[in-house]
Amino acid sequence: MAPDAEPVADGTGRARGRRSGRRPGANETRLDILRAARRIFAAYGYGGATMRTIAHEADVDAALIHHFFVSKEGVFAAAVEDSFACVPIAADDAPGDVGERLVRGFLDLWSNPDTRDPVLAVLRSAPTYDEAARLLRDLIGRRVAEYVAEGVGHDEAGLRATLVGSQLLGLALLRDVVKVEPLASADPETIVRVLTPTVDRYLAGELDPL
Amino acid sequence: MAPDAEPVADGTGRARGRRSGRRPGANETRLDILRAARRIFAAYGYGGATMRTIAHEADVDAALIHHFFVSKEGVFAAAVEDSFACVPIAADDAPGDVGERLVRGFLDLWSNPDTRDPVLAVLRSAPTYDEAARLLRDLIGRRVAEYVAEGVGHDEAGLRATLVGSQLLGLALLRDVVKVEPLASADPETIVRVLTPTVDRYLAGELDPL
Repeated sequence: MAPDAEPVADGTGRARGRRSGRRPGANETRLDILRAARRIFAAYGYGGATMRTIAHEADVDAALIHHFFVSKEGVFAAAVEDSFACVPIAADDAPGDVGERLVRGFLDLWSNPDTRDPVLAVLRSAPTYDEAARLLRDLIGRRVAEYVAEGVGHDEAGLRATLVGSQLLGLALLRDVVKVEPLASADPETIVRVLTPTVDRYLAGELDPL
Repeated sequence: MAPDAEPVADGTGRARGRRSGRRPGANETRLDILRAARRIFAAYGYGGATMRTIAHEADVDAALIHHFFVSKEGVFAAAVEDSFACVPIAADDAPGDVGERLVRGFLDLWSNPDTRDPVLAVLRSAPTYDEAARLLRDLIGRRVAEYVAEGVGHDEAGLRATLVGSQLLGLALLRDVVKVEPLASADPETIVRVLTPTVDRYLAGELDPL
């Protein structure tokens, strides 16, 4: 990606601030389109989003989106790129705290639209769009695997990482996508306390018959 | 639904067997369409399925699907009706075995296309189609809640049921939809042994701070 790549989670709302008083430049317009695309993909998934809806949300002509990103595939890839960069890495932390930090980091991610929308876009699209499924596989294989205690074999680390992913993404699916009560409105501290022992065990506990 | 409703998981392949030698009746054609619809919704989700693809899969004219089911909404509702009826209820079992039976029942469900397709259709559609999301909420609120130990309050039973749902559906999402390795090809017995303690704890264990 070009050096003008947008930090997904900068949270500064810079583009919006800059807009007042002068005409937006090409880079600013590109960032506006990416933000709009994240909202639309997060709301409707890849299959439900159209270039027209994204153009409407970004308040630009659809031809401009084609100019910048060529296709819906292109705008999706750019919109969700680095969407998981904000998942915290706990490598420098005490081992006993890793599970709790991972659960907290995941809940924090969902609490802010800047970090939530690209991840929600991937989660809503992965069941029916191969490119989003590939991004999810990457997330779990690469980033979650970094949490797994060193010194275990490759297969065991992979299984542990995918088990953690199954619990955290299952939580996001029911809590934030399908919105099943009472989970959807449960206090985040309750979720941290309930999920941490599960994630701790998947990360480093005894997994008979491993 | 009419008395001719199809048992989702009869697995007899009756319609196919009957076809030889005589012209299919209306009821048989209707069942063929439902089977085809389950395969198409399971493969593409609600948004990706069309009446035309379903008609092609069922080898009938699309007008016939409109005749039987009026709309795509109608054929989806009929195709996934009772799709969770096959999730086993363990009420008559020893309490200590409930978690394991639930995990085994869920894995068995995924091992047979007759029971898997309608559930996969709902799971693939729920992130972007409200009616499928409502079916998932029903499943967890109604059927999974039956597993929760008696004698707990309504809110706690609901939270326990949704936690179990988050782990089992997260597993299905990563293992059977997104197909993340090594989880996707892990031995079912390994999954039973790894997930049972989690499900047992969500069902009946200590969930500080409940």
